[in-house]
Amino acid sequence: MSASPTPADLSPTLDLAMELMRRPSVTPDDAGCQALMIERLERLGFHIESLPFGDVENFWAVRGHHGPVLAFAGHTDVVPSGPEIHWQHPPFEPCIDDEGMLWGRGAADMKGSLAAMVTAVERFVAAHPEHHGKIAFLITSDEEGPAVDGTRAVVAHLREAHERLDYCIVGEPSSTEELADVIKNGRRGSLGGVLHIKGKQGHVAYPHLARNPIHEAAPALDVLAREHWDDGNAFFPATSFQISNIRSGTGATNVIPGELEVVFNFRYSTEVTHEQLRERTEAILAAQGLDFHIDWTLNGEPFLTAEGELVEAAVDGVEAVLGRRPELSTAGGTSDGRFIATLGTQVVELGPLNATIHQVNERIRAADLDTLSQIYEAILERLFINA
Amino acid sequence: MSASPTPADLSPTLDLAMELMRRPSVTPDDAGCQALMIERLERLGFHIESLPFGDVENFWAVRGHHGPVLAFAGHTDVVPSGPEIHWQHPPFEPCIDDEGMLWGRGAADMKGSLAAMVTAVERFVAAHPEHHGKIAFLITSDEEGPAVDGTRAVVAHLREAHERLDYCIVGEPSSTEELADVIKNGRRGSLGGVLHIKGKQGHVAYPHLARNPIHEAAPALDVLAREHWDDGNAFFPATSFQISNIRSGTGATNVIPGELEVVFNFRYSTEVTHEQLRERTEAILAAQGLDFHIDWTLNGEPFLTAEGELVEAAVDGVEAVLGRRPELSTAGGTSDGRFIATLGTQVVELGPLNATIHQVNERIRAADLDTLSQIYEAILERLFINA
Repeated sequence: MSASPTPADLSPTLDLAMELMRRPSVTPDDAGCQALMIERLERLGFHIESLPFGDVENFWAVRGHHGPVLAFAGHTDVVPSGPEIHWQHPPFEPCIDDEGMLWGRGAADMKGSLAAMVTAVERFVAAHPEHHGKIAFLITSDEEGPAVDGTRAVVAHLREAHERLDYCIVGEPSSTEELADVIKNGRRGSLGGVLHIKGKQGHVAYPHLARNPIHEAAPALDVLAREHWDDGNAFFPATSFQISNIRSGTGATNVIPGELEVVFNFRYSTEVTHEQLRERTEAILAAQGLDFHIDWTLNGEPFLTAEGELVEAAVDGVEAVLGRRPELSTAGGTSDGRFIATLGTQVVELGPLNATIHQVNERIRAADLDTLSQIYEAILERLFINA
Repeated sequence: MSASPTPADLSPTLDLAMELMRRPSVTPDDAGCQALMIERLERLGFHIESLPFGDVENFWAVRGHHGPVLAFAGHTDVVPSGPEIHWQHPPFEPCIDDEGMLWGRGAADMKGSLAAMVTAVERFVAAHPEHHGKIAFLITSDEEGPAVDGTRAVVAHLREAHERLDYCIVGEPSSTEELADVIKNGRRGSLGGVLHIKGKQGHVAYPHLARNPIHEAAPALDVLAREHWDDGNAFFPATSFQISNIRSGTGATNVIPGELEVVFNFRYSTEVTHEQLRERTEAILAAQGLDFHIDWTLNGEPFLTAEGELVEAAVDGVEAVLGRRPELSTAGGTSDGRFIATLGTQVVELGPLNATIHQVNERIRAADLDTLSQIYEAILERLFINA
């Protein structure tokens, strides 16, 4: 395939993916991506509900009249490109190189998935215009940013409207070594904290008149870093605690600072609750005799779709297309799946390889998108035709 | 005494002190202070040697032809005023209030001492025009700043010129509760370090792929903070270690940082050397298995004038004027005494109360400056007349 294929050379999935990638939709700017998707879905008879919140564009689209609801969920926004000079190809001018790699911001995360979802549904509807069940799309332009006015707000709206949502496939890049080797069937919870430890400022020459919060905190931070929070379980690795930022000091080299700030994060399993983590953290700090307070932020509770029709259909669909069974995993960062799962929905994440996401030179194997589209179609068939 | 005394109301010492304080000589700007001092000293027959280095003004002045040399040392620069709105009286418009307090930047640190030195010498020379010994002044306009082109440079010059310097009285504010309750006869050494600890950056969701330098450093910092470096001795408190600044993190809450920076400082006694402190620090960090390096800065080696003619004259001089004996101490921060002591000089620091130095509303009891001038004169008499 040449470096600049004409649209005629491209599969419908790659053509749509590159159309989306040409739109520089850095969070929360949708840059026309959703209009392009909506145009294709309306042609298939989807009912579109536009759901803008703040400066974020979202839509909810449904086709079908009865039976269980399967939503394809994803985001049109991408993270910034970083320095363009480090890109081998311009980040918003997608191209396919001689090796068959599709280059550009959003190739993996996650405009490729969006294209694969649309074309999968197009083929499925063409083959089964009177399909059982309802097919839906839940699309936002803010997953990479604050994510407050995105999927979370749409889910709140669906809850209020008593919309049913049985199954959800999130197009996040779940694959690690080869396409669809991993399906995410849950995610750990994420609990953040900003710890403020108070000391007493003074001059380094008169330490007896001061209380150094860095000295006082060191053993407590060591205890927290070594704490065994749980063992995890069959679906989740053990809960982990990481300090991401630490800061204290006036800049002067002769002043004992008066306060220390420590930013930390828990990724936690379903074996503990965020309330337990808060209590245990505060007990450890109190036992060290520290004068402290913590500002907590619950980024997302853990969710898990241990088993059920969706996991079964996803695993079988991958096997039908690729001849191998994917691994189920809950590792990695958070995704919008955490919000959708609160509706009682079975949720899986299934998308391209994640090796280059959020980096310069984001790229994936172009042919993987056609395969991914076949997998999505195979899951639709298993849930709404063969079931 | 009214809030705005006329010069006629003022003693020569207070008059000169306020003249100096009206000059806003923030480091390294001398603002005409040295010219004023030089004019007075030339009238007494001092030989003046102007020794500017970089943007710092310094002078060395000598009177007398034979015998031991006693230098009065000090600085004309002051630290910035801080927000003027917080001053009860404008910082560079010295005044004496109804309680007899002299207000203004430099009152204690150390224009008051400079005035007391000049008037003490004026009275001494008037009474003993053919005095034994040589009286000198070593004055700089950068003690509060980098202090590279100040006393340190003048001392290097004196060393090259093979100038003799037997005794030195530094006018730093040594007093704590009442005037001349403390004479500093030494100072601890100051050794600074910037510790860089390397980890491996990563995502908080994948801690097994990263190495968190904050987690790895916590136990090592605890060991350093608890380490017993020495017991001090009769003249010095135990060596102390303090961390003044700590910093790590990208600002993002989901990134494990790749490096930690820790700024620390030793104030050390004559029981250890800076080489020993470096070795012990690095051994502790190496024993913790850290990947680190340290940038060291030796701010000043410790000095001590344990006994001798100068300490004796200073203690006796205080007792003659005040009827009580001062305490000898080596506590507190560094001063230019560390540079002068390298000439083999006996050094003491003796000046006003230090309670308000480097703060807004710097002030001292006005009458203390007249008393301080008498003490300086009494020391001159003990070294050069009664000896």
